[in-house]
Amino acid sequence: MSELIPADAGRAYELDRRHVFHSWSAQAKIDPMVVTKAAGSYLWDGEGNRLLDFTSQLVFTNLGHQHPRIVAAIQEQAASLCTIAPSHVNSARSEAARLITSHTPGGLDRIFFTNGGADANEHAIRMARLHTGRHKVLSTYRSYHGGTSLAINVTGDPRRWPNDTGTSGTVHFFGPFLYRSAFAATTEDEECTRALEHLQSVIELEGPDTIAAIVLESIPGTAGIMVPPPGYLRGVRDLCDRHGILYIADEVMSGFGRSGRWFAVEHDQVVPDLLTFAKGVNSGYVPLGGVAISEGVCATFAERPYPGGLTYSGHPLACAAAVATIRTMEDDRVVEHAAELGRTVFGPGLRELADRHEWIGDVRGTGAFWAVELVGDRTTREPLAPYGASSPVMDAILAACRRRGLLPFANFNRIHVVPPLTITPAEAKAGLSILDQSLAGVSMNNA
Amino acid sequence: MSELIPADAGRAYELDRRHVFHSWSAQAKIDPMVVTKAAGSYLWDGEGNRLLDFTSQLVFTNLGHQHPRIVAAIQEQAASLCTIAPSHVNSARSEAARLITSHTPGGLDRIFFTNGGADANEHAIRMARLHTGRHKVLSTYRSYHGGTSLAINVTGDPRRWPNDTGTSGTVHFFGPFLYRSAFAATTEDEECTRALEHLQSVIELEGPDTIAAIVLESIPGTAGIMVPPPGYLRGVRDLCDRHGILYIADEVMSGFGRSGRWFAVEHDQVVPDLLTFAKGVNSGYVPLGGVAISEGVCATFAERPYPGGLTYSGHPLACAAAVATIRTMEDDRVVEHAAELGRTVFGPGLRELADRHEWIGDVRGTGAFWAVELVGDRTTREPLAPYGASSPVMDAILAACRRRGLLPFANFNRIHVVPPLTITPAEAKAGLSILDQSLAGVSMNNA
Repeated sequence: MSELIPADAGRAYELDRRHVFHSWSAQAKIDPMVVTKAAGSYLWDGEGNRLLDFTSQLVFTNLGHQHPRIVAAIQEQAASLCTIAPSHVNSARSEAARLITSHTPGGLDRIFFTNGGADANEHAIRMARLHTGRHKVLSTYRSYHGGTSLAINVTGDPRRWPNDTGTSGTVHFFGPFLYRSAFAATTEDEECTRALEHLQSVIELEGPDTIAAIVLESIPGTAGIMVPPPGYLRGVRDLCDRHGILYIADEVMSGFGRSGRWFAVEHDQVVPDLLTFAKGVNSGYVPLGGVAISEGVCATFAERPYPGGLTYSGHPLACAAAVATIRTMEDDRVVEHAAELGRTVFGPGLRELADRHEWIGDVRGTGAFWAVELVGDRTTREPLAPYGASSPVMDAILAACRRRGLLPFANFNRIHVVPPLTITPAEAKAGLSILDQSLAGVSMNNA
Repeated sequence: MSELIPADAGRAYELDRRHVFHSWSAQAKIDPMVVTKAAGSYLWDGEGNRLLDFTSQLVFTNLGHQHPRIVAAIQEQAASLCTIAPSHVNSARSEAARLITSHTPGGLDRIFFTNGGADANEHAIRMARLHTGRHKVLSTYRSYHGGTSLAINVTGDPRRWPNDTGTSGTVHFFGPFLYRSAFAATTEDEECTRALEHLQSVIELEGPDTIAAIVLESIPGTAGIMVPPPGYLRGVRDLCDRHGILYIADEVMSGFGRSGRWFAVEHDQVVPDLLTFAKGVNSGYVPLGGVAISEGVCATFAERPYPGGLTYSGHPLACAAAVATIRTMEDDRVVEHAAELGRTVFGPGLRELADRHEWIGDVRGTGAFWAVELVGDRTTREPLAPYGASSPVMDAILAACRRRGLLPFANFNRIHVVPPLTITPAEAKAGLSILDQSLAGVSMNNA
């Protein structure tokens, strides 16, 4: 018997509007796009229009849509064993853990599987608190660490505001971001030095012995893809070592090849104590996240129970998708391809756009992980949309992209270029060309 | 190319011990069972022994293992569209929402999808707080609401203790539990009346205007399957209505047929304001949870954004599994079958066991959702294992079940009988017979 669900776009839309409650939205104010089909770097909307996916959805379909090896792995695992409780041993879970730890920075040899990035961060913080016996957690402004209560309070972007219960022990500091420097710096070196001095001050003033962990997106994602200056992450590692603070690297978005390395901490040769992941681990084909754990932290929970868990920890179907994803990344040299795309297509291509379009204030990124910062004025760097919101001119640019067949990723005054890592150079260039035309086609009068 | 993962039990075990971090465990003290295969009501361990699954794993494989319709649905959805961002519309998500709302109590017509039960409860509480403008959340002792920070602090079982940060606004009260009455009650009626008086006192003393919601497992699950006396849930509903408090029914374990009704609130004809689910919604074949939302709460987020979300909200693969699960439950009358099992097999069968075994202190349940409370002394009702731990005699009983081919679900001094809802009467009776032999075979000397 076929269990196929009718893929009628009109019916899907009608039922969605009647019965589905959407994330981060005013339910009556949205008009969502129907997606009926997707393949590789493309998806199709309810009217049959093909769109080049420069979003990887929420930056998770790292191997593109409907990759045949991941689809086959899901189908085969489904036929064999869909699920089993986390207390038992299962070969898909074991093999996924082995493969992931073969790529994590040295010594992060044990995996606690979760359903996504939010609970990965929740559990990493719990481990750090119990390991150190300290309570406070430091994280940066302009960061996102997930939507559950603790994760959203650690978050440093506007999504925290309506959820801010002042969760005890969360403290925010400023990370490096030269284009909008919090330290009046004018060079990467200066920004790095001053940002580390600032962090050191915060640690000293908060009290080093009260701080369990520093949680840091290795490259902050939705908050703006601010690639840290060389030496910054190493500086954070040093500060952590000096004060007995654990370093939690949030690689939910930056991990699994997105930055042109398996994990973005590698750009600065840093080994964190805990590393959280989700999204790219299996291209999001089945919900999966996790925490990679150092030997030291693991030892804390050798004889003493770790007081945390979840029903779907190490879900076999999700793990089988991870196995296929990682094997594909290895076999097809996907991480190297992403790095090459950054060097030869996105870097030069976006800088060329910046030369031509007055309202591109900054271009930054690495691999397949780029931000284009749009400003009303290059001198004042006034954002083209206010922090925490959109603007008519931003909306016009995004709509122009869509009309030309490109699905863009936007956040406030930024457009992020975050396509599948498997995008071809020709597809990538076609996307940049649409972005170029869309920027040209919208006049400042929309502002 | 086949993406099959080698199913060698020895290798799976070795990799698990080296690389997998287990939920709720001291990592060096566990010796987990390998599961190589599962079908219907059975699974097979690494040595090829067949075990009758009286656990439904963590009480989630409601349609048993490897149900062909769910497997087919996953395979077909995988071939068509594994995933898409939550902001878009997708027919699997739309149809799952329609089917779920066709079974939720009247008026809960909108679904916010999550990855599991913990984040479902986190989001339901967030909605209640924003809807009411109040902060406090009341929940019962002897409850479990999930493993993330807020959910575990709302929880009322020992899993909260090592995580208890005194999360602001969580208040615990006593639910009805006649066998260990907190109110010196001797009849169900008395327990019901006194438990409601107690709750009313707590509300009055905490201040009704400070309370956003009461979160209640409709039948508390892991904490002991304490079926509430008739009228209790209706009494809670009345108290909520009187004080403008939202009623959140946690049906993560009790929902989707487990209790012999689609949702356990139906036993008391109650319509909550928010209802959380996970597990049985798709038999756990793909991680999925959610919140069913009343019109009133939904209206709060019509023009004002709901400040919460997650990457995998309404994951198409998970939703396709839900569609197949619910259609199967309808077509095969699975809920009616579960109710019948409770009436004709588990109820009479377990009460017969209680007649023969001195250390069965209490038997309670409904549908395929039963607890057997073991005591050292029927008069004092001294539990056979202390609250929050196991004991040698409990371990001996569980090991005896395993040797005889039954996988039991245990919590402290209780054995829960929570098999797939699709178990046949013959299989169910065979399981009860093993339980009978195992209780007989272990002498009080183990105590």
